[in-house]
This record gives sequence, structure tokens and C-alpha cells, in this order.
Amino acid sequence: MTNFPKVARQIVLKSRPAGIPQAENFDFAEATIPELADGQILVRNEYLSVDPATRGWVSAVANYSTPVGIGEVMRSFASGKVVASKHKDYAEGESVTGLFGWQDYAVVNADAITRKVMEADLPLSLSLGVLGLNGITAYFGLLDHGLPRPGDIVVVSTAAGAVGSAVGQIAKLTGCRTVGIAGGPTKTKLCLDEFGYDVAIDYKASHSIDEQVADACPDGVDVYFDNTSGPISDAVMARLSIGARVVICGTASVASWDPPPLGPRVERHILVKRARMSGFIIFDYQHRYMEAVKRLAEWVRDGKLRYLEEISDGIEHCPPAIAELYRGENLGKRLIRLQH
Amino acid sequence: MTNFPKVARQIVLKSRPAGIPQAENFDFAEATIPELADGQILVRNEYLSVDPATRGWVSAVANYSTPVGIGEVMRSFASGKVVASKHKDYAEGESVTGLFGWQDYAVVNADAITRKVMEADLPLSLSLGVLGLNGITAYFGLLDHGLPRPGDIVVVSTAAGAVGSAVGQIAKLTGCRTVGIAGGPTKTKLCLDEFGYDVAIDYKASHSIDEQVADACPDGVDVYFDNTSGPISDAVMARLSIGARVVICGTASVASWDPPPLGPRVERHILVKRARMSGFIIFDYQHRYMEAVKRLAEWVRDGKLRYLEEISDGIEHCPPAIAELYRGENLGKRLIRLQH
Repeated sequence: MTNFPKVARQIVLKSRPAGIPQAENFDFAEATIPELADGQILVRNEYLSVDPATRGWVSAVANYSTPVGIGEVMRSFASGKVVASKHKDYAEGESVTGLFGWQDYAVVNADAITRKVMEADLPLSLSLGVLGLNGITAYFGLLDHGLPRPGDIVVVSTAAGAVGSAVGQIAKLTGCRTVGIAGGPTKTKLCLDEFGYDVAIDYKASHSIDEQVADACPDGVDVYFDNTSGPISDAVMARLSIGARVVICGTASVASWDPPPLGPRVERHILVKRARMSGFIIFDYQHRYMEAVKRLAEWVRDGKLRYLEEISDGIEHCPPAIAELYRGENLGKRLIRLQH
Repeated sequence: MTNFPKVARQIVLKSRPAGIPQAENFDFAEATIPELADGQILVRNEYLSVDPATRGWVSAVANYSTPVGIGEVMRSFASGKVVASKHKDYAEGESVTGLFGWQDYAVVNADAITRKVMEADLPLSLSLGVLGLNGITAYFGLLDHGLPRPGDIVVVSTAAGAVGSAVGQIAKLTGCRTVGIAGGPTKTKLCLDEFGYDVAIDYKASHSIDEQVADACPDGVDVYFDNTSGPISDAVMARLSIGARVVICGTASVASWDPPPLGPRVERHILVKRARMSGFIIFDYQHRYMEAVKRLAEWVRDGKLRYLEEISDGIEHCPPAIAELYRGENLGKRLIRLQH
């Protein structure tokens, strides 16, 4: 049996944030690692994930998952190695990814494990990004909800982000023309140079977002993959083509939904353009994850799907990480690496 | 050949309204009825239709149909009899319905005719209401976009209107529980007594619309058939159930879309509830009209689909009729009957 310490280092929820979770909403803690009960697995986390969706997990507002309780380990995706197992399906030394929380060691039941990571030729960190929920979200969101067709104009908000960058590239693989919207010259350059967007729009530029979208999409927008909501969406919604599909994946630009902020009503765009707006939660696709992972891994190996990671070393980087994400400070998938 | 006068009485567009067309935007005119050219048909209109959609036809804002020009006969659906024909497919004495305009006689090409009215056992006026675009809109909007399932909670705005009343009844035929939203006690009573809604909500009542929707739909709303937009929609959107379908059919509560009014953003409801909002224009279903008419006529004959008409006699009732519609003053399908 692998050696491991008796105590796990953890990040726990200290107070419930009103909007975006800030560093001060979290605290450091230590907890004795208990003896494994039958069916339990001890995972040594190597990478902790930082995801926009976790905002919802600490919100008291009705949501798609039970809120993390005060004093509880922050819920989070993580990838690591099984170091002890009392479950017949998991053996010591196997790599796994799942909901292991912001901690260096996690005692979990099998239902916390999303999947075994079998693509040993690729870095384990990818199981939290392009081969994890980010890539899987891009895959099903674009293909099942956006229904892209060759020649379609596909607009992506947070285009250089972990989800958006994969959406743009999968749209290109589908034969679409892609327009990425991102904030600042570094990210728009990434959109063009790394992620192959045909056009990149800087929503922070002096030129108005409405004019930029109109210029980039003179024939309208066939698919809008929306990670932001807010003024970016307002500009794109006004340019939908007939039969357009709007995929609601995230609302990164909205600091608080309680109460919902005001924006221009969308009903007339939806009506006149016979458009469709649909939302999805990737957890509903759990039974199909491997279908996406298999395809995404092939594309990564073939160099058709590029990704960017921003990795910090040490669990102390966790508390401020979600707020940094919402400030758009990171480039690429945000991960915390744990040294053991 | 039937006798008919040499001059047609017409209602023409005098000026372009900013929002809802008012009486003063129209003028009376007379025009000589020309000799029929080959392929043309002379229709003696018996009923002229008054439809909310006509607002869009006189708007200069980009839309799904070319705007009616100043001085042109107001575009409108109408039903009548062929009184002269130089088209092989149409014979004198046949009943037809189509885009014949607000005039007592119309010289038209075959493409203006929506269909021959074959259901001679039913009143001709129904071809403009429950067996016309109103019923057809309800049929395809609810069944193709709302995808109702037995047991679903279906909420309908303008529930006592020509479209809404049919939506509610088709939803009941599908085995759904129906909640109708209408303005004032007369209309809510109609919803319950005539159109079989399980619950009727009066949005003009002192009790807030939000609370009324919450009370009527404790388990959420599975299908929302929206004819209004505005605060009614805001209340319903906040109560969607997981997987809900929102059908955007009209925006009666919004006086002007230029610029679009502000409302609470819907993205988070759509996302968290994995909901879908889609718009449709009934003209896209033209090739399938008869599929709906056949079924709707059966339901009318069997007493399963009830309707209400509000008929005024004389073309002079046309000019103020659209504005009256938007003020919600009518009960049932609004028609102008012409005496010949």
C-alpha cells in the first residue's frame, strides 16, 4: 500500500458569498484521514479544478445541485491516483477523476468518481480540462444544442476559455466559420493563433461590441454559444439569422442573479428569427461522457484540438481562484497542482 | 357571372405608426375594379380579419414580411367567394380564404389564396379563426414547439384570445393540466367556462401575478405558450420546471420593440432548468396547414374545440380594430363582416 499522511489538508467554505465566491469565503482546515469503510476509495489528488460553475454550488439560491454547507470541504472536480481501495472496481495505482473536493487526499465512494482516466499517453491534467467537463461541455453543448452545419457562422463568448476554445475548434472541425469574443488583445490573439477562430472580437476594445458583431457577421449568426450573458449576448442576439440556435452554457458576465439583472427582452428576436434558445447542464450527459472523451482525445492526439492550461502549485492558490476566473485573469484552464 | 360593382371600397395605410397602428393611421379609399388578367381571380370578401400580427406588417422595423406601403390597401386575411375567375383552379362560387386585404372586393393572383374553404357545413368565418391562422398557430405552436405530454402543466398567456383559447383546449385534449392567464374577470370566466382551463389567472387582479402563477403551478411550468412577453412572462419564466418548453408566439404586451424594452434576463432560468425557448412564424408551416385544419375541424364538429367570435358589420370598423385588439377590448376572434 502506498504511504500517505494521516491528515488531509482542505479548503472549506467559511461563509456564503452573495455573488462570486471570494478568497475570504474560504478557510484552510485539516482533517484526520479515516480508515476506509467497505466500498470506499482513498484518492491522492494531483490536480484540483477551478470552474465557473462552482459559483452555483455555494449559492443559497435554488440551483441544480445542493449547496456546499458552511464548514464543508469545497466541492470541486479533481484528478489523482487511487492510493488505497476497499472497492472491487478500483485498484491502487489507477488514475481517476471526479468530485474529490479541494483537498489533497479524499476518501470517496464510487459515485464520486466520474471516470477512470485510461488515456495514459496524455497528461492527467487534461482529464479536468479538454478531456474533462470543459471539453465534454463544449462537445455536447455545441453538437447537441447548437446543431452546427458546415458553413454556419458560430459565435462563441469567452472564446479563449476552457470551454469556449474547444467550442470554436469543434465548430471549425464541423466546417463552420467561427467568431470568438474575448476580453483584451492577449485573448483575441490566442483566439486567432491558437484556437483557429476566423475572427476574434475584443469586447473591451473602444469599437462597440454591437458594431464589431455586425461587421463580423454581415449575414447573421447561425449558432451562438453563450458563456457570458450580458451586453455581449445582447449584441449577438440582435444579429441572429433565421433558424438560429442559441446555446446557454454559462453566465460569466453576471455577478449576481438574485435578483436577475435587467437586459433587452429577447422574445422578438426569438420570434422573428424562428430562433431557439436552450440551456443544458452537462451532468445530464453523464451516461454519454465517454462518447465525447473518446472523440476529444483523438482530436488532441491528432493536433486538431488545442488547449491551454494555467497551473499553480499549492492548495493555497484555491481560495482566490474562482474570483480570479470571473475577473478573466487566467489564460487557459485554471488548475491547482498538489505536490506530494 | 355574378353581378358586382365597378368600384372596391378599401382601407389604405395613411401613415406609419410608431407602435400599435391606430385609427388615424388608416384612410378610406375607393378604387376601380380592373378587368381580370389571365390567372387572376376576383374575390368578394365576406369577412375581414383583425390580427395582432398585422402590427408587424406596417412597421418599418426589420420583420418577417415586407411592410405595407403608404397608400396601399392594408394587408389582411379575409374570406369570401370567387365571383369571377381567369384561373383554371378557381371557379365562380367557390369559397376561399387568403391575403385579400381590407377591401370589399379583391383582384388577386392564386398565390394570395391560402386555401379553398371546403368545410361547407361550418361557418365561413371560422376559416379566419379557429380553422384559420389562429387555430393553425395554436396547433403547430403547441404540438411542434411546446411538445406537451399528458400530465404536463401548460400555461397560456392571452388565454381567452383566438390563439390562446385553442392552445388551452388542445393542451387539454393532450391530457395536460392548463392554466390560462387573461385580463379581467370576464375573460378569466371565459377561460374556465368556455375553454376548459383548470385554473384561470387574472393578471389585472390585485393579487400579484408572480404569486398567482406560483400558487397555480406549485410543481413548476412544463410548457409556457407565450403570446404577451412582459411581466406575465417574467412571472412564468421564474417557475419553469426542468426541461420546460417556452413557445414564443406573440408579444402583445409590448407596445414598441424599437428599442427593445428591458426585462429580467432569462438566461439563468433557461440554463438551470435545461429549458428551451423557441419562436415560430406560422407561415413557415404553410405546406402543412391542411393537416391542422382537418384535425381542428373534426374537433369543432365534435364539440371538443370551442371558439368565440366578435363580429362587427361594415368596413368602417377596420381602422380602430388593431388598436382595440391590443387594448384587449375584444372577446373572441375579431372579424369585420361585409354586407353585399
